[in-house]
Amino acid sequence: MLDVAEACRRAAAAFDPYRHTPDADRAAFLRAIAARLEASAEPLVTAVREETALAEARARGELARTAGQLRMFADLLGDPSWAAPKHLPAQPDRQPLPRPDLRSRSVPLGPVAVFGASNFPLAFSTAGGDTAAALAAGCPVVVKGHPAHPHTAALAADCVLAAATETGMPEGVFALVVGEGNEPGQRLVADPRIAAVGFTGSRAGGLALLAIAQARPVPIPVYAEMSSVNPVFLLPDRLAEAAGEVAAGYVASLTASAGQFCTNPGLLFAVEGEALDKFRAAVIDLIHPQKAQPMLTPAIAAAYRAGVAAFAGQPGVSQLAAGSGEDAPVVFQTAVETFRSTPPLHDEVFGAAGLLVTCRAAGDLVEVARSLPGQLTATLQAAPGDRDLAASLLPVLELRAGRIIYNGWPTGVEVVPPMVHGGPYPATSDSRSTSVGTMAIDRFLRPVSYQGFPPNLP
Amino acid sequence: MLDVAEACRRAAAAFDPYRHTPDADRAAFLRAIAARLEASAEPLVTAVREETALAEARARGELARTAGQLRMFADLLGDPSWAAPKHLPAQPDRQPLPRPDLRSRSVPLGPVAVFGASNFPLAFSTAGGDTAAALAAGCPVVVKGHPAHPHTAALAADCVLAAATETGMPEGVFALVVGEGNEPGQRLVADPRIAAVGFTGSRAGGLALLAIAQARPVPIPVYAEMSSVNPVFLLPDRLAEAAGEVAAGYVASLTASAGQFCTNPGLLFAVEGEALDKFRAAVIDLIHPQKAQPMLTPAIAAAYRAGVAAFAGQPGVSQLAAGSGEDAPVVFQTAVETFRSTPPLHDEVFGAAGLLVTCRAAGDLVEVARSLPGQLTATLQAAPGDRDLAASLLPVLELRAGRIIYNGWPTGVEVVPPMVHGGPYPATSDSRSTSVGTMAIDRFLRPVSYQGFPPNLP
Repeated sequence: MLDVAEACRRAAAAFDPYRHTPDADRAAFLRAIAARLEASAEPLVTAVREETALAEARARGELARTAGQLRMFADLLGDPSWAAPKHLPAQPDRQPLPRPDLRSRSVPLGPVAVFGASNFPLAFSTAGGDTAAALAAGCPVVVKGHPAHPHTAALAADCVLAAATETGMPEGVFALVVGEGNEPGQRLVADPRIAAVGFTGSRAGGLALLAIAQARPVPIPVYAEMSSVNPVFLLPDRLAEAAGEVAAGYVASLTASAGQFCTNPGLLFAVEGEALDKFRAAVIDLIHPQKAQPMLTPAIAAAYRAGVAAFAGQPGVSQLAAGSGEDAPVVFQTAVETFRSTPPLHDEVFGAAGLLVTCRAAGDLVEVARSLPGQLTATLQAAPGDRDLAASLLPVLELRAGRIIYNGWPTGVEVVPPMVHGGPYPATSDSRSTSVGTMAIDRFLRPVSYQGFPPNLP
Repeated sequence: MLDVAEACRRAAAAFDPYRHTPDADRAAFLRAIAARLEASAEPLVTAVREETALAEARARGELARTAGQLRMFADLLGDPSWAAPKHLPAQPDRQPLPRPDLRSRSVPLGPVAVFGASNFPLAFSTAGGDTAAALAAGCPVVVKGHPAHPHTAALAADCVLAAATETGMPEGVFALVVGEGNEPGQRLVADPRIAAVGFTGSRAGGLALLAIAQARPVPIPVYAEMSSVNPVFLLPDRLAEAAGEVAAGYVASLTASAGQFCTNPGLLFAVEGEALDKFRAAVIDLIHPQKAQPMLTPAIAAAYRAGVAAFAGQPGVSQLAAGSGEDAPVVFQTAVETFRSTPPLHDEVFGAAGLLVTCRAAGDLVEVARSLPGQLTATLQAAPGDRDLAASLLPVLELRAGRIIYNGWPTGVEVVPPMVHGGPYPATSDSRSTSVGTMAIDRFLRPVSYQGFPPNLP
């Protein structure tokens, strides 16, 4: 295993040859990684299950997604528009001065540091979305593996390294570094050869790396996807028409993979009334039989318990529904006035904990939406009769979230070109970007223009 | 005149109605500003000349450029692709789960703070490039006028405000704030209603605003264009073939507007020899008759004198050529070894001061290029016989500059789609952006995706 400085040194040496590889060769590299991950499905799925307690179907699905992401970026490289080329021919006869020929295109930033996420041991870790986007852009990658799944990380790294050799990529184009505690990651972000950072994890972790990146002699961009409670607005007609269906969708989204998704629907807003009572009853019925699922790590389970206890201890907050077992799903409820005056209720509890915030009038929904900080997602559950209220909420939500969902649920992030998995601070450290979908490549590029160059250069 | 907080309050109130104006209406607003600036040409040119000492032709040219920038963004809004819309239709029959309809587009960040530049009282100030880009994006603008040209700023602000009224834009969409010292600008960047900052000026000023923006409870992006010495590489065959022509182009670019351009060619690199001697002789002949031109402000003139004195006092640095008068153009020369071991020689001297760095071999050019920090521009003067050397320099330069120029000069920035007026730190605070050309609008946008929405929403 390389140490951080040596991995960075090799990544820097690889940068120039790697960024000049033809797009088709980088695409072949990405496809070779995908193929090798799939060929290693059995050991990878076994490692994921042993290290994270995720279910087999989830591990297999995540592996398919990881391979799909790599192929999506390989496909993207097949269309030269990925580098946003522009060309304006010269006007030699322009008055008062001739206009020179001008071209522009995007170039890669340099070696990228990627931090593996605890909750996506494959799709947001070693060979995950950040790595795929950076490698597609022409940036070597140094991954800091998440300490919760070192064996999974090592197996995935072997796939990347073998694919690099197979497709003739320069040595140093990829490295996995590991190490205990925060110090190796901090050294990685501080290393002068690193040009950008991709991170998925806690707000404290993301902000610590951001501070290091900003304090460098040459500051670098940090794309940290940090925290989100993903508010859901249950509009009156929708609840009146489909309380049971909405409850089923909610509970399924809240409890999948023990709620350990960045896009888990932590907050529900609804107006008091008969329809909400029906929704509550359905949620109680659906949550009650749920059992505790093992969480990713003991630290995550401990944080979940502490978060649940903090909610339970707030005056004005009651438990609406709970499953059985210490880490089981739980839904609390409170009135909007209590929610607004109790900042700890705005915090993310990572896991299957929900909070139903009840309002007295539809107008309260718009008002409380205005008070929300940046989110990865916001969701509207609305019937045709809710159109005006939805239209009032939408402009508020689109300034506060990277993705707005209509009559769906926030978990289950499609890996497609129009996907935005990002959002205003503190959901991420850079609202102008996404970490999922083809636009994720833009995080690792910058534009350069070329003036007056002859056709054989650059 | 509004105070900072009141201007920000009004800008925040204007944001929602303004961002929902049809593109065609914002385009009409931008065109109306351009028309009013042109209709006020006489008082504007007079104010510029009185406040900045810039020549009349320069003032008129800058006014034309300012109007042209506004119209360029108006034209951009005529093509819906400015907001990067994407759409992937639903796949209701996809297995194992249906795929929802997904759309994405860019939305404006919010009210933008723009800092007027000392050296472009029109094109990079009140109604300048940052203002035009932000208004086009749908962001209200609060301009902090540069204290060196308050009357020019007030006249331009009147044009913007009258155009806003004429085209029915919401009140508060634009404001000019003034004030002595740094404090009003600092309060502007710290104001929680401001969502992004555009700045053109000194490195100290840009970094101070960046620190304020990063320390806010909700950090915001700062696009600061700060400093650049714009290295020029004179390759051997080019000098041998056209020493006189190259010298003429160099001196014209160095001395235009008393050298007060961000893209002024402060550094020249060349290989010792007969051709360079001819170039030197031509530069001496061309610089000698040059007279001091009045500089923009007494403070800028004082900084120029101090910078020139600092260069003159460095051991190993000699004066190659100088005009007459205290603030006249001057060209120093030194050997590459001295340059590399003397960090003060790497600093920008704002004004018509150049430094010729002489090398012993062509390979030294590539080596010294690798040592350069981020720049707005880098220039190659090359003949066909220099192709291999140019091809070696190009990949080094494109990682260090936003624009590479071939057989031209860096001053004279075309306002066109492929223009990149930006570059790696410390040339700017955000290498992923440009402050000139249509791509400048991207600084004030973020992507949002919409999942499963019916056709009548959003």
